[in-house]
Amino acid sequence: MIVPVAAADDARIAAFRDVRERDLVGRGGGFMAEGEVVLRLLSRHIARTGAAGAGHRLEALLLSEPQAQRLADLLAALPPDLPAYVAPQAVMDAVAGFAIHRGILALGRAHPARDAAALLDALGPRALVVAALGIANHDNVGGIFRNAAAFGAGAVLIDRASCDPLYRKAIRVSVGASLTVPFARVADASALLDLLAARGFEAIALSPAGAERLADVAPAPRVAALFGTEGPGLPAEVLARARTVAIPMAQDFDSLNVATTCGIVLHHLAEAGGKG
Amino acid sequence: MIVPVAAADDARIAAFRDVRERDLVGRGGGFMAEGEVVLRLLSRHIARTGAAGAGHRLEALLLSEPQAQRLADLLAALPPDLPAYVAPQAVMDAVAGFAIHRGILALGRAHPARDAAALLDALGPRALVVAALGIANHDNVGGIFRNAAAFGAGAVLIDRASCDPLYRKAIRVSVGASLTVPFARVADASALLDLLAARGFEAIALSPAGAERLADVAPAPRVAALFGTEGPGLPAEVLARARTVAIPMAQDFDSLNVATTCGIVLHHLAEAGGKG
Repeated sequence: MIVPVAAADDARIAAFRDVRERDLVGRGGGFMAEGEVVLRLLSRHIARTGAAGAGHRLEALLLSEPQAQRLADLLAALPPDLPAYVAPQAVMDAVAGFAIHRGILALGRAHPARDAAALLDALGPRALVVAALGIANHDNVGGIFRNAAAFGAGAVLIDRASCDPLYRKAIRVSVGASLTVPFARVADASALLDLLAARGFEAIALSPAGAERLADVAPAPRVAALFGTEGPGLPAEVLARARTVAIPMAQDFDSLNVATTCGIVLHHLAEAGGKG
Repeated sequence: MIVPVAAADDARIAAFRDVRERDLVGRGGGFMAEGEVVLRLLSRHIARTGAAGAGHRLEALLLSEPQAQRLADLLAALPPDLPAYVAPQAVMDAVAGFAIHRGILALGRAHPARDAAALLDALGPRALVVAALGIANHDNVGGIFRNAAAFGAGAVLIDRASCDPLYRKAIRVSVGASLTVPFARVADASALLDLLAARGFEAIALSPAGAERLADVAPAPRVAALFGTEGPGLPAEVLARARTVAIPMAQDFDSLNVATTCGIVLHHLAEAGGKG
């Protein structure tokens, strides 16, 4: 339902105000998605999962006038009661608090927090899971989800020290993957390892001091790849309880970005047959 | 040489003013590096290459008082005539124009632009080269250099449409690798392919429609991996003249970040024996 708005102080678009400053997730499960690629992915995801009430919900769109015209096909396929507010670019920028070059904002409500054990139970006998411990950077969390989606991971598990995958920037960097790959929080590394062991998942822990070379790893059918912060890495108690794996690097520059590391590992595990 | 400064308008630290807004490279080969890890890497690099006059030069440091104390070992090893200006954090932030949390800025002068053909000629019979075409994002250029350093690439070649590897943010994201991995500009993709062919480098072009699966690729001893923009990818004329390679991905999410893709490819090429 197209709803033209002409003024930045129109109360109907108040939910889009100052999106950069607000972490909507902290306000009861709301999230903000940006751009055409993410919106189309989210729409397909909702169409697939919505009937069962299992997925996220869209609550409102805010579009610039040219984008509303370009996305006519998408808008026609959305529920008729979903408001798509259409505003001049200047009004949109004034509401959001910065220049929304893409001209597309989507306000949504997230699926309630999932249970990690239930997520693992729902996966098949061959499955790939990603676990992030202490990843406090939105770019890295977003990048990890993007890799998880690209290599068909069935779930992402994150500890409480990692940042919210549904924060606006994490959604954007993930190209929407944090909205589509199911994830759950675990209390800490110890709870994660207990959970994986109980469900028959082999835990693979990346570390420069890993005992095996990644390229040599033939993973178990159910496998979880664990990633820690770039500096300190995974804690010693995690390495002691996992299969430790290293990526060989140049002697004088032993440093990879954690999202890149994740991509390298998932590519290998997917090729080596660790997923269904 | 420690030089205490007490005021943001001290003329001796004018070169550090408003670093966020200034692209120093556009001002005659200057660059700005940030943080301890990059400064230590750069210092080692200069110590190794400086005697031959082949590398970059350090011109001045600006340090917060606590950092100057922490880095005493590093400062003692630097040339005695290199000024290390030490300022209260508030003065440092006021000069730079934003909060310099790391408390470490280094102003340098870059090695003069290198010649791509000469760079390739300097490499051995087994060598790995990275080429970036149209990568206009500083994070991605920085990430590509970080991967190049980690996997021992001998050179990075970039076209004119890619952004400057010595821009402040690219240096930071590369963790200093753009200061240590030699790079050169090529005019365009066609010049790049001519150059690689003439030097006996196999050109591997990443593309979702690539003819071979990355995991199956046994590279030539001299190999160059080519990366294009995330959206349009490498142009058709490049794909027509290269060995095209794909990374298999999930059907509904065929999307990887270009720096992550680069990491995956370099890891495979390094493991498969493509470098010396």
